[in-house]
Amino acid sequence: MSWQSITARDNPNLQRLRKLAQDGGAYRKLGGLWLEGDHLARAAVQRGVRPALALITDGAAADEALRALADAAPKVLVVSPALFKTVSGLESPAQIGFELALPPQPRIEAQADSVVLDRLQDAGNVGTVLRSAAALGFRQVLALKGTAALWSPKVLRAGMGAHFGLRLVEGLSVEDLDALKVPLLATSSHSDALLHEADLPNPCAWVMGHEGQGVAEALMRRCALRIGIPQPGGEESLNVASAASICLYESARRRLVGR
Amino acid sequence: MSWQSITARDNPNLQRLRKLAQDGGAYRKLGGLWLEGDHLARAAVQRGVRPALALITDGAAADEALRALADAAPKVLVVSPALFKTVSGLESPAQIGFELALPPQPRIEAQADSVVLDRLQDAGNVGTVLRSAAALGFRQVLALKGTAALWSPKVLRAGMGAHFGLRLVEGLSVEDLDALKVPLLATSSHSDALLHEADLPNPCAWVMGHEGQGVAEALMRRCALRIGIPQPGGEESLNVASAASICLYESARRRLVGR
Repeated sequence: MSWQSITARDNPNLQRLRKLAQDGGAYRKLGGLWLEGDHLARAAVQRGVRPALALITDGAAADEALRALADAAPKVLVVSPALFKTVSGLESPAQIGFELALPPQPRIEAQADSVVLDRLQDAGNVGTVLRSAAALGFRQVLALKGTAALWSPKVLRAGMGAHFGLRLVEGLSVEDLDALKVPLLATSSHSDALLHEADLPNPCAWVMGHEGQGVAEALMRRCALRIGIPQPGGEESLNVASAASICLYESARRRLVGR
Repeated sequence: MSWQSITARDNPNLQRLRKLAQDGGAYRKLGGLWLEGDHLARAAVQRGVRPALALITDGAAADEALRALADAAPKVLVVSPALFKTVSGLESPAQIGFELALPPQPRIEAQADSVVLDRLQDAGNVGTVLRSAAALGFRQVLALKGTAALWSPKVLRAGMGAHFGLRLVEGLSVEDLDALKVPLLATSSHSDALLHEADLPNPCAWVMGHEGQGVAEALMRRCALRIGIPQPGGEESLNVASAASICLYESARRRLVGR
């Protein structure tokens, strides 16, 4: 373990971290990820992630638990809170962050329970869907081109560690989904059946669409079923991450009760 | 209908709108709400809301549909996009916004299906819960002191019009919930029963807790049941708005299938 104090704003490590923290797509060029905050950093370590680098404020370095967390990295940089703030992309910067290597992108696993993201725009929504997928046993998430970058700092934060328990494939075209070989289910207000009554195939892939436009027509045509979520409250709409959570729960529930 | 062009940055109407747009709690002092964006403005009008004032960019005023939307207000102020941006609290400002009067706060309705928010911090989460509550037929939302301000612009945006179909009461103490007279159900990892197996009372109130700390102990003691959401994916955690959506869906589903 090497601990090092940094005071120079233009330190090359800090310059790289700044790009990773503040540009949601920088990981694609730089091959590294920025995880900010002790909650998220701890969740990653608990899932077996080994960070390449830790950045910690001098104040946090005096805290035993945070110090131990930073020690998960072979190299720790200690900075002032003001310098940490120049790296962080957050309004209220954290006191610790990790850089890790971007995991290599896997191939699509056939016959696996999956969630397909069709151009979801909001990073918070994408991260929240990943979190629900991990909890509810949908281990593969496939993002079509135009979806928010899965490994961006914002999606990582909203995912709260879920990334590290999932098989994540991004940048896909609709045709790439042919490799999946499970029925696609889309939520739609023009539905074939309501969620609580529909026969849900198993395994399956739930398709979640763009916040404003929903699932694209070319993808909708490939879906085996269009499912409506019952809305006894009337013609309201649901947030896409809420809709995903409900659909994944219903699939999980059917398996638990054996039908 | 009165349309008026404004160019002065210190116009008193713009100054008031700026406070309402940029300070999440300003509605409590000023008694007015700021709704930004045509999607949200339209959702409000569709639910019978009558705005007091519309603010529109000169570009949007040339668009027939947006012009008609602005005409829902008795007074319309037309400004440059640059001046609109000084009002908006958003990174990407919209082209239209409404001011409306804050509805008077109702009393707690006894025996009503409800959602209780115990110090939820994130405005996006609060708005998303409101949206799910409206869709799934839980018509009353009770926010304890310490919860994000329900009528703030951020919560309004995430709620996407749900506010105007709900009975919303905020600033409550735990004791105030005595007036509710329905069993309180909390989600908890230390649960009495799993959601898909539990006997769910009807009517009921689902209690959703602080993002980091969960439901406060004093409130948990008043809960009739502690319910766990089944997580076949393992010991992950769910976003609080996802958890709320799942629980409200399960209550709604039981009623639809009659058990």
